[in-house]
Amino acid sequence: MSTTFETWRVRFERLRANKIFELTVITIIVVSALLIGARTYEETSRFQSWLLVLDTAITVFFLVEILIRMAAEKRLRDFFKRGWNIFDFLIVTASLIPMDDSEMVLLARLLRVFRVLRLVSMIPELRMLIAALFKSIPRMGYVALLMFIIFYIYGAVGSFLFASVDEKLWGNISLAMLTLFQVATFESWATAVLYPTMEQYPYAWIYFLTFIFFNAFIFLNMMIGIVLDVMQKESVAIQLENGEGEAAEMHGLRDDVRHMREQLARMEEMLERRG
Amino acid sequence: MSTTFETWRVRFERLRANKIFELTVITIIVVSALLIGARTYEETSRFQSWLLVLDTAITVFFLVEILIRMAAEKRLRDFFKRGWNIFDFLIVTASLIPMDDSEMVLLARLLRVFRVLRLVSMIPELRMLIAALFKSIPRMGYVALLMFIIFYIYGAVGSFLFASVDEKLWGNISLAMLTLFQVATFESWATAVLYPTMEQYPYAWIYFLTFIFFNAFIFLNMMIGIVLDVMQKESVAIQLENGEGEAAEMHGLRDDVRHMREQLARMEEMLERRG
Amino acid sequence: MSTTFETWRVRFERLRANKIFELTVITIIVVSALLIGARTYEETSRFQSWLLVLDTAITVFFLVEILIRMAAEKRLRDFFKRGWNIFDFLIVTASLIPMDDSEMVLLARLLRVFRVLRLVSMIPELRMLIAALFKSIPRMGYVALLMFIIFYIYGAVGSFLFASVDEKLWGNISLAMLTLFQVATFESWATAVLYPTMEQYPYAWIYFLTFIFFNAFIFLNMMIGIVLDVMQKESVAIQLENGEGEAAEMHGLRDDVRHMREQLARMEEMLERRG
Amino acid sequence: MSTTFETWRVRFERLRANKIFELTVITIIVVSALLIGARTYEETSRFQSWLLVLDTAITVFFLVEILIRMAAEKRLRDFFKRGWNIFDFLIVTASLIPMDDSEMVLLARLLRVFRVLRLVSMIPELRMLIAALFKSIPRMGYVALLMFIIFYIYGAVGSFLFASVDEKLWGNISLAMLTLFQVATFESWATAVLYPTMEQYPYAWIYFLTFIFFNAFIFLNMMIGIVLDVMQKESVAIQLENGEGEAAEMHGLRDDVRHMREQLARMEEMLERRG
Repeated sequence: MSTTFETWRVRFERLRANKIFELTVITIIVVSALLIGARTYEETSRFQSWLLVLDTAITVFFLVEILIRMAAEKRLRDFFKRGWNIFDFLIVTASLIPMDDSEMVLLARLLRVFRVLRLVSMIPELRMLIAALFKSIPRMGYVALLMFIIFYIYGAVGSFLFASVDEKLWGNISLAMLTLFQVATFESWATAVLYPTMEQYPYAWIYFLTFIFFNAFIFLNMMIGIVLDVMQKESVAIQLENGEGEAAEMHGLRDDVRHMREQLARMEEMLERRG
Repeated sequence: MSTTFETWRVRFERLRANKIFELTVITIIVVSALLIGARTYEETSRFQSWLLVLDTAITVFFLVEILIRMAAEKRLRDFFKRGWNIFDFLIVTASLIPMDDSEMVLLARLLRVFRVLRLVSMIPELRMLIAALFKSIPRMGYVALLMFIIFYIYGAVGSFLFASVDEKLWGNISLAMLTLFQVATFESWATAVLYPTMEQYPYAWIYFLTFIFFNAFIFLNMMIGIVLDVMQKESVAIQLENGEGEAAEMHGLRDDVRHMREQLARMEEMLERRG
Repeated sequence: MSTTFETWRVRFERLRANKIFELTVITIIVVSALLIGARTYEETSRFQSWLLVLDTAITVFFLVEILIRMAAEKRLRDFFKRGWNIFDFLIVTASLIPMDDSEMVLLARLLRVFRVLRLVSMIPELRMLIAALFKSIPRMGYVALLMFIIFYIYGAVGSFLFASVDEKLWGNISLAMLTLFQVATFESWATAVLYPTMEQYPYAWIYFLTFIFFNAFIFLNMMIGIVLDVMQKESVAIQLENGEGEAAEMHGLRDDVRHMREQLARMEEMLERRG
Repeated sequence: MSTTFETWRVRFERLRANKIFELTVITIIVVSALLIGARTYEETSRFQSWLLVLDTAITVFFLVEILIRMAAEKRLRDFFKRGWNIFDFLIVTASLIPMDDSEMVLLARLLRVFRVLRLVSMIPELRMLIAALFKSIPRMGYVALLMFIIFYIYGAVGSFLFASVDEKLWGNISLAMLTLFQVATFESWATAVLYPTMEQYPYAWIYFLTFIFFNAFIFLNMMIGIVLDVMQKESVAIQLENGEGEAAEMHGLRDDVRHMREQLARMEEMLERRG
């Protein structure tokens, strides 16, 4: 029986590595995405029952596919060792929530949307892009904290000073920070935020201009930081590739020369002894 | 007769390489562009017949020019081997559609607009720029796919959640993605999209802020990727140019030292034999 | 008595370096920040008295903390030698202004907001970020001056020409420069500023387009300047780190070779004398 | 008399190089700028006569200053050899147009504004910045031409297709290109331009999205080009500075080794002859 199990495992492993199998999965993901998109059109309500059948078929396919992937592993826990597998598992199990339940229908739909993300776990180039994005998170973390502090301070000051101007924009610190985010994206910041405020507080432009300058300044410096960071990594990579090679060459050369000096010293001694 | 044909071919080849001929072609392209621009002014309808004559003259000139280019080639298929020639050929033949036909007049006009693009195929610097643009397409392809996935997911979620808020902005996934593109360009994203949505869904800001952060984050990373890519190519180019030269120098030095060590070994042996 | 003083000083020094003490201070700063944020909500007016007690407690805590930091120094003036200490001292003493005084209440609140900035002086990574920001100020100073000159000239021209179009936008040079800043951020620059102006002055687009191009051009060049600057510093740093190492290696090699040549010269002389 | 002339020339030359003289000129330029700014305020019309006196004084000062600069040169044509001198000369002579003439008053005022630009010619750092800006013009010229071609084509297509939608936005190719510039800056491009157009032409989004992508794409590539360009210049500069030094060191080393090999060959021959 154990051999039967092993035979099946190898078959599943082969299937998993099969290019046609991979392409089929990607196609089903795209079909699933189109299905989700189609549901947002009102006209599709006529095909409700057909869509439901198709959705069930896709859900079953994804379930079978993930079971094949699991069965292809020698030990089940190997499957859960890779982050992308856990990611796939969560997305697939989440979409098992029945869709016809009238109350859960919205949640079930939303969970089905995330199936599109399986494209990322299927295409290696996208996986690499996401990995690169995750690597740059710590580098940006402290800059984000600094920006949050600036938003918090300006938000507090703004809600203390301008709450009387427009309760909707500056009513409390949360609203003020959202307004400041709008200002940071330059959306109607002058016509809808600055000018109405200046009618009551003629010097409000100081508040807004300093805020914009701080933001632009920090953003520019963040960009400098990133360029510098990328360059350092790059130069290290270049050294590892060919720089070390040259250093090793130089090291060999110095060794050669040291041997020659010793040899010459011996020869000179011989000549002197005979002289 | 074959010699007559060859004589004419050589004459056409010389004409094609002529600087004055090239300048004339560029001038006619610019005149053609101005003509197209002039047609968009209502006042020019008085000169309708004159413009038509001029347009016919330009069309004939371009036809003759491309025939000269073709005749200058030893074999006609050589002409179609270069992409820019096919590009020119398509633009010229497309503008042969008669313009006086009342139904086709708009299409004919539009096709004539693309004649301006012949400027790109005539000026080498612009051709190089376009070639550089084409080279960077694959590099940006996967980033564009990733962004499309994010737009698709947010579009689906947006049309599920916010369809009741504004049918025009979130009615279906296409409208929602267009609205999200508007948000990504920061155009009236707060005043016209966020605030009306927040009146019904007070937590809608989470949806918009995460979307904006995802976009900015991926865009920044795309820029890092491009800088890194450019730097790698650059460092390879530098190595090819002068780095290899230094490595070769080092290699020669080690060869010299090896010869010296062999020579010294022979000399030491001689001294010892005699000693 | 002097020993008692010294014992206490060492105790304070140990406390200051204690990780738990540092974490407590950071926690209190965050609590203080949340308190400030909470005050901006109207609902919190019920807990007025509680908030006042909490605020007093925090003020006292910060006072005690800064006194401990001072007492931990061997000489008091050492404390004021580090910029961040002066920064902390100013923030803490500023928030000693009594908050219940009805007239000073707004000022006192604003001063309390700046306590959040103590997060920057407590977290080393943020201190480094701020230091990097300060370093890039001189580099950007002249570019800022150049931009100010352009804003001033366009502001003067704008208020001479367009004052009759819209007194609010172009009434005097200050208003004109603020309007130009709005144009530079692309906020409603066409719909609210350019098109109304063009109704009276059809050629006003020349003024706006040249202004936008100048700004974009200078901004782009500023970015080039920054990248170049960062790269120069980087290449110097690389040289200092490993470039010099290679140069030293090379120097040693030349020394070795020189010694060998001298030795060989001696040996040749010996051989010739005997020959 | 020639010696008197020479004595005065040397005195003027010394004055021109004097730091206090330079500072005075800069101060007068700033005062002149403030005067121009002050004139834009209506309240200043009371001090009209005073401002006129001050303006005359400044004009005379600038005239005297430029005459001193001219007199300091050995030959007058040397003065006009440096671009910044011509620049100063034009600004100073232009502001000699009398200001009280009622018709010319606006032109005279505008010409006086450009006096602020003399700050650029007085401060070396700003002169260097402007020189850097001029150097980058050719590099950006062809990219600008490419962008203009894209604007022209989209402008022509837009005015053919959408003229019926909004005569003010798409009436002719000039208006269409201005509208496209507004779209390129993302100013109300969706709410004021795209959505009204889509009501008549539902597929208009293809036109706008392709235009925005083309622009963003070319802009990004322009930035790549600039970074690459800066890096090439930088690496050449580094090679000139220290790269050549190392190459020279290496060259010397190889020479040394060659001499040693010759010496060894001589010695081996001697040993063999005797053996």
